[in-house]
Parts: sequence; C-alpha cells; structure tokens
Amino acid sequence: MGDVPTFRTGLGTSDADSITLLGRSLADDMLGEVTFGELAFWLVAKRPPTENERVMFEAVLVALADHGFTPTAIAARLTYLSAPDSIQGAVAAGILGGGSRFLGVTEDSAAFLAGSLAGRDALPTDEAGWDALAAEVITVTRAAGKFVPGLGHPVHKVTDPRTPKFMALARDHDAFGPHLSLFAAIGRAHPAILGRTLPLNGAGVCGAVLADLGFSPAIVRGFALLARCAGVLGHIAEEQVDPIANDIYMTVDRNIEYAPPT
Amino acid sequence: MGDVPTFRTGLGTSDADSITLLGRSLADDMLGEVTFGELAFWLVAKRPPTENERVMFEAVLVALADHGFTPTAIAARLTYLSAPDSIQGAVAAGILGGGSRFLGVTEDSAAFLAGSLAGRDALPTDEAGWDALAAEVITVTRAAGKFVPGLGHPVHKVTDPRTPKFMALARDHDAFGPHLSLFAAIGRAHPAILGRTLPLNGAGVCGAVLADLGFSPAIVRGFALLARCAGVLGHIAEEQVDPIANDIYMTVDRNIEYAPPT
Amino acid sequence: MGDVPTFRTGLGTSDADSITLLGRSLADDMLGEVTFGELAFWLVAKRPPTENERVMFEAVLVALADHGFTPTAIAARLTYLSAPDSIQGAVAAGILGGGSRFLGVTEDSAAFLAGSLAGRDALPTDEAGWDALAAEVITVTRAAGKFVPGLGHPVHKVTDPRTPKFMALARDHDAFGPHLSLFAAIGRAHPAILGRTLPLNGAGVCGAVLADLGFSPAIVRGFALLARCAGVLGHIAEEQVDPIANDIYMTVDRNIEYAPPT
Amino acid sequence: MGDVPTFRTGLGTSDADSITLLGRSLADDMLGEVTFGELAFWLVAKRPPTENERVMFEAVLVALADHGFTPTAIAARLTYLSAPDSIQGAVAAGILGGGSRFLGVTEDSAAFLAGSLAGRDALPTDEAGWDALAAEVITVTRAAGKFVPGLGHPVHKVTDPRTPKFMALARDHDAFGPHLSLFAAIGRAHPAILGRTLPLNGAGVCGAVLADLGFSPAIVRGFALLARCAGVLGHIAEEQVDPIANDIYMTVDRNIEYAPPT
Repeated sequence: MGDVPTFRTGLGTSDADSITLLGRSLADDMLGEVTFGELAFWLVAKRPPTENERVMFEAVLVALADHGFTPTAIAARLTYLSAPDSIQGAVAAGILGGGSRFLGVTEDSAAFLAGSLAGRDALPTDEAGWDALAAEVITVTRAAGKFVPGLGHPVHKVTDPRTPKFMALARDHDAFGPHLSLFAAIGRAHPAILGRTLPLNGAGVCGAVLADLGFSPAIVRGFALLARCAGVLGHIAEEQVDPIANDIYMTVDRNIEYAPPT
Repeated sequence: MGDVPTFRTGLGTSDADSITLLGRSLADDMLGEVTFGELAFWLVAKRPPTENERVMFEAVLVALADHGFTPTAIAARLTYLSAPDSIQGAVAAGILGGGSRFLGVTEDSAAFLAGSLAGRDALPTDEAGWDALAAEVITVTRAAGKFVPGLGHPVHKVTDPRTPKFMALARDHDAFGPHLSLFAAIGRAHPAILGRTLPLNGAGVCGAVLADLGFSPAIVRGFALLARCAGVLGHIAEEQVDPIANDIYMTVDRNIEYAPPT
Repeated sequence: MGDVPTFRTGLGTSDADSITLLGRSLADDMLGEVTFGELAFWLVAKRPPTENERVMFEAVLVALADHGFTPTAIAARLTYLSAPDSIQGAVAAGILGGGSRFLGVTEDSAAFLAGSLAGRDALPTDEAGWDALAAEVITVTRAAGKFVPGLGHPVHKVTDPRTPKFMALARDHDAFGPHLSLFAAIGRAHPAILGRTLPLNGAGVCGAVLADLGFSPAIVRGFALLARCAGVLGHIAEEQVDPIANDIYMTVDRNIEYAPPT
Repeated sequence: MGDVPTFRTGLGTSDADSITLLGRSLADDMLGEVTFGELAFWLVAKRPPTENERVMFEAVLVALADHGFTPTAIAARLTYLSAPDSIQGAVAAGILGGGSRFLGVTEDSAAFLAGSLAGRDALPTDEAGWDALAAEVITVTRAAGKFVPGLGHPVHKVTDPRTPKFMALARDHDAFGPHLSLFAAIGRAHPAILGRTLPLNGAGVCGAVLADLGFSPAIVRGFALLARCAGVLGHIAEEQVDPIANDIYMTVDRNIEYAPPT
C-alpha cells in the first residue's frame, strides 16, 4: 500500500446526517431558496450572484438554450433513435457538437473582449473613448486577417433581436461593464472601418455579459453547453412523443449517391 | 432529387428579424423574464410552470446538481486533464456516467411510483389509505425479489436531510400529489414489512416530485443529467484553478499491481 | 494521508526501458507480429486467438464496420460539422448511437443463443437434434411475446448475404460451434412455427460467431462498437474532403414545420 | 415538401440482395479476406493498403492501443461503474480523453513533419542532407519558443523501445519515407542544438509512419482513437471480471479535503 494525497474541493460533501454544498446546508439553505441558474453561477464563481447578476446570468442561459434544429439537436435526436435506452448518450451527443463552430462565438467574444481590455492602464470613460478603442481593436484584427467575433449573423442580417434586449437588461441591472461597453462600441465603430454594417449577434453579446459578470473566457463555453443541455432535453422529450429522427435518417438514406473508389 | 418530409418542432425557430422560443418572442417575452430552470421545465412540458411548480422543479435541479467526487465528476476531471482544449468532451464524459447506478434512483422512483398508481380506479383519500397501498406495493415488490427504489442510502443511514425538506416544500407549494403521498407512505409502512427502518433518500424524493409535476418517468433521468451538468461544470472550473485530476491519475499509476495473462 | 489499495491490471504497463502488453514485450513480440484485430481479441480474451479464430474474429469486425448512412454515421458527421477541432467528439457521438436498436442485434443474438444453451446437460449431436432444440426455443420465445434476435431484416428480406458467408467461413475454419449450430437450426426450423420464412441476419450471425469464439454476451456490444469506430472514421475522413453534413442540416432547416405549444 | 439534395458516399451501401463496401461485395470480397486493420486503412484512404503498408499500419494501431491506466482508461472504467448498462457510454468516455495532451503527440508529429516538408522543391537525398534539414527545423522551432513534437518522454528518458522497432520495420517493409527520414534525423541532430539528448518517442514515430503512409495529419488523431478504442474495450472487459473502478472512487472519496468558499 502506498500513500495517497488529499483531493481538494469546495463544491459538495456529505456525512451521515448532512449534505453540504458550497459550504452551506443543502437542505436548509439551498433547496427552495436558490434557482438552478443561481446555483450554476455559484458552482463556477464560488460565490452567489447578486440579484442583478442572477437575472443577467439566467438571461444568458435562456438565450443560448435552443436554436431549433441545429446540427447538435439533430445529432442528439439521431442518437436517441439509435439508443433510446441510454438518454445520457443522446444528451452527450448533443453536447459534443458544442465546439468551435456552432457554439464557439460566445467563448470567442468573451476571449476577444477580455484580451482587448487586458493590460491597459486605464479604460475609456466616455462613449468617444470606447469608440476609439473599438476602432483600434477592429483595425488590428482586420490587419491580422481575422474576424471580430460576435459581428455578423447568417440569418439576422440587420439586427439580432437579442442584442438590444441584453443591452437594455444590462443597463437596468447595473451590469453594463467594460466588455459590454467595448462590444457596443464595436457595433458603432465598425462600419467606418469595414465599409459595411453588420449586426452584433446574440452569441457575442452573451460572451460580453458573461465576461462582465467576471467569468474567465476559459469557462464560458461551459455555460453555453449547460444552456444547450436544456435545449437538447427539450428535443429528446419532443422526440419521445412526436419523433422526426427516423424521417431525417430515411431522407438521407433514400437520397444516397454512391460513388465508390475505383 | 427526391421529396423531403417536413420536420415538426414546437421548440425554437427564427427568421431574419425574430427568434421564437416555445411560441413566444425570445427577446421580448423570455430574456430577463424567466429563469433557466423555468425554461427547462417549459421546454420539456411544453407549458410554463406555475410559480409553485417552478420552485419545486428548481429545488430538484439544485438537489441533484453535485454530490462531490462521484465517479462521474472524477471521469469529467480526468477527461479535462487529457483533452483540455475540448471542454465539451469533459462535460459529455461527466454526463455519460448518468446511467442506471449512480443517477438512476430518481428515474426508478418516478417509474415505480407512477407504475404503482397506474390503472387504479381511485386513489386513497387519507393517510391510512396511503399506508395500505404502500404496504401492498412493498409486499409485492419484496415478493418479486426486488428493492423499492428510493428506500435506503449508503451514507445517510437514518435520515436523508433532503427528504423532509422536500416534503415540507411540497406542502408549502401545493405540490404534494399522489406520488409524494405514496412515497411518504412507503416511508411509514416499510418497517413493519421489511423488519428494519430505512430512510427515504433524496434521489427518490426528487423522482416523486418530478412525477407529481406531471413528467413522464421516461424523461426524468434527463433532468438529473441537466442538474449534473451544472455540477460537472463546477468541477471543471475548479480543475482549471485548483487541479486534482493528475493526482488521481498518479495515485493509480503508482499503485499498479501488474498481473498479466500467462 | 490515507492508505491506497493496489489497482490490478493484466493489460499494459511500462518502465523506463520497456513497454509490456499482455505480458509480452510490445516492441519485440507485438509490433509487426500481430494484427490489430488479433490484439483486440487478445485484450478482451486475455489470450491470443488461434489463426482460425483470428480469421473469424476479424471477419466479424469487417462485417460490422460500416452500414452506410446509419443514424450513428450521420450523428458523427453532424458533430464533426459543429466541432471540427475535436475529432474525438465526433467519433464519440458515432459510438453513442451503438445502443439497443441499431447495434443491439449482435449482442441480443449472442445472449439469446448463450441463454438457450446454458444449463443443458447435453447438446444435440446431429442436425435433427439441433432443429428440435431450435423449435423449442422459438416456440418458447414466441409464447412469451418476444422476437427471436437475428431473425428478419428490413432490407435483406430473403437472404442476408453475410449469413451464408459466415457459415461457410466457420466450417472452413473449424469454428462452427454450438451457437452457430443453434442459429443455423433456427433458420431451418422457424418457418414451420412462425408461418413465414425470414432470413437470418448478418448482425445475428456475428453474435453467434462471437459467442462460439468464447466471448461473454456482456462484451459483445463492445466489439460492434470497435468495428463501428473504424466506419465512423471513414465517414469523418470522407466528410473532411467531400462534406455532406451541412446539406443534411440545411435539408432539415429548410423544411421545418413549426408547431409551438399554445 | 421541398427538394432534397443527394448525399454522396463511397463507403457502404446495400440493397435487398447485396451489401457493398468500398465498391466491393462485402460477403464475397471482404469477409475472411481482409483484416480489420486493412479495412480501417481502406475506409480512410479509399484504397487498400499494400501488404507492406498493412503491416506498418497495423503496427501503429497495436502500438497505440493501450498504455495502462491512463486518465482515459480510468475515465472509461469509472463511467462503466456508473452506467454498466451502457457500454457505449463507457467507450465514448474513454475516447473523449483522446485530445491534445495524452493522445496528441501522434497528430502533432505528423503535422510537424508534414509541415516541415511542405513546399520544398527537393528533399534531401542522403543522411547529411536530412541532418541539415532537421537542424534547420529544430532551430526554427526552438527560436519560436516551441517544442519539437515526438522528442522526449516522461518515462522512457533514454530510449522509447517502440522507436527503433518502427525504424527497423519501416526499413524491412519499404516504408521509410521522408517523414520518417526527417524524424530520424531530428533524433541525430537535436543534441548539438538543444544541448541535451532526448529520445524519439513512440507516439511521434507513429505519426511519422502514418504520414509516410500518405495520411493527412487531419485524420491521424482518428487512428489513435481507433487504436485506443480496443484498449478501452480491454479495460472494460477487465472491469467486468476484476473491477477496480470502485476502489479508485473510494480512494478519492476517503481522502477529500473540503475547502468551501467563504
């Protein structure tokens, strides 16, 4: 037998008579007292959100939960069709599509905004200052041959309806921090530099909100995955009573063009 | 080119100017208005919860979110250690352990209670009636060589602190339905039949609450997975700043007993 | 610090100078000496296959590797579309569909045949004896309202071309054991009992072959998953150079019938 | 109803009487004729390997299949412990750890070597020429503050036994191409530049072999995942008969240091 180290955690623990979560009594202090979104914030931040922060955070989760028949929702439904006895496999399949392309903008925006603000001695104090900073980071990004994350949307070509709503919510909830300020300024400053007007998209504004809530960009994708988990569950529940996955499979199967190697 | 069927959904859709979720405007009616837990209920039930239902439902998600260093939390951390660039893989690994053994009691309890109530002409109207019904189902289950789900706990051998709390919450929120009534009766009736007193566990009471909220047992495991998703996220966030997965790996690696086949 | 147990394995281990796999030197005894299929057999059975066993085992893996655009292949491609940076997520999504419905027949057949043979004092010694046993198990299964696994196929309604090939291979490789004998007899005996003639399908014959190779039904699904892993890899590689996942997504997205809850 | 595009594939298809794989009859041309490793090569390369290529390719899969109690093997076992009814979930959890850190060297080496050779008018024709090229790429890599993939190993500090074996196998099988030539030259040239002597590791030599077999670095990680799938299966089969996952769980659970947030 060898020695074993200790394994630190600040999340949950229990003994014969009690269950402790984040240092509180689960039964006495948590159940019926905190929302699930509040707990999710707390589990990651290791502190409870203020009421204003809770509203902003839950709005982000609500905004990211479901986007209709995304590839991840379809993958979850097809996996449920194949293995209906293992709902966890269908949920996991839906989660696994949460990578760089379809769920990455939120994380990319948070990282871009946080990176643009990092290391500055002082932040702008008025709109003109934010616009100048936005112009600078757009110009640098464009010169590097890259896109500004959160700018543009394949469907919402003029306005993404989530963006003005989040801006208003943030103002109303004392949550309009530097990341949202820079993001909003990008919305104002980019047409003069890029020569066309693009919308600030909803995934990007969610990244800005999460960064203003104090979260590291490294965990931001995780919140998008949590939100999507609820959406995937909706798709699986719908598939249980009104299935379409087999129709998708059959649509592909009946339209195969077989082109074997020679 | 062939024909293609239509693919029905009642969850989300969008066009150039609007995003619709569950038939409502996401921006105008949902963001800042509903909690994430409320939305999760709505996505599955296809109707919003009442405020009382919301409280009960969120309490279930909070109760199931984290149970410390479970095998699933450890699996998620080890996967994050191996593939830190793919947080969705670590979350999925944590979800995949949500099967019959460590997360199954909630589902099993919901199915057991629902099955015990199904097909009865009338339900009991007083405690004595519920106790008689409980005695009947316990006796039948025992005769079949099976266990009553939700009865007993490896750690909380006398009382699981979640159970009385949920009972109280349900009474306070007009949510004490037939599944909880039968579950509570099982707690009263089993000692006389089984010859020993076991606690009603927290995973089981969550199953009873979800069944009383109207959910099919077939989707109940999904809510446990959603709850656990938040817990897994907490573990990953903790692993990012205070890692222990490599210590677990090294503990195993340094204590291997190699016993090759001959 | 506490004590730690030892963790037994007979698979692989290594030290500064050597790598040992299954008790052999990986470099000296394995590389260039054994096929990958041979190793997969060995890792599970804890003994190397004979040459005849190797041929049968690899034929099973080859038979199960790819079945075109199955739901699992489509799920893997859609996941790759969403998260191309994480190929392991796409492979995992393809694996996760390997459950009871689309990949379960191989396991179900192995379990059915093994269960039908278990506990008998003596096995039949001629074809008439096997036919009688087959008639018995078919009759019992039918009376229980169940289907005989491995009987019938949605596409190959008369003959599944894999089945006679495996029968011939097994005869040529001294691998026609009791499970295949019973399976073949089921093919002969069922029309008189069921009143119609169904083909023995290829997934079922693979289950019979694996059972005759000595594998427990509990691990049989695992081999189907390993085989499918190669097929999924083919789909991902094809998606990299000739993608169709976005067309599937767009086909669904353009044909949504939105039916929101009221 | 709308139009639907066709979905191209060159892998598998079937009709009522036949199953076609890669343009061949599965039953007549594949079963009993090709090894599983051969098929895996073929599915990705869209051509069968030569016999020499097959030997090299299967050796790579054998080399990468199992490395003992890696984090991915432990994650697979813990997932099997939690959800033993869903073997596909345990395999998927094992696959999901196949990311950048513990399984990435093979891919990184293939990409590094391919990138180092790309765009050159002519490749070296003798050992001195390869050494000069190796010195150049090592110097450039070091100047960029990066490591040369495939150089160094945490356990095999002097020699990784797989590397000389693969070099010998490649010479014997007419498979010593430019990627292996550069990799071998890196082994000779780096001490003079880096000031210390590191081993060429086995994961790196596998990347070089796969690149010399003509595979794109973009698919290389996929082969490592396929190989690891067999190893994970061995761990799950071992867990079924001689379990250790619960001991790992208990080892962690008994040594928790609870440090809740304040």
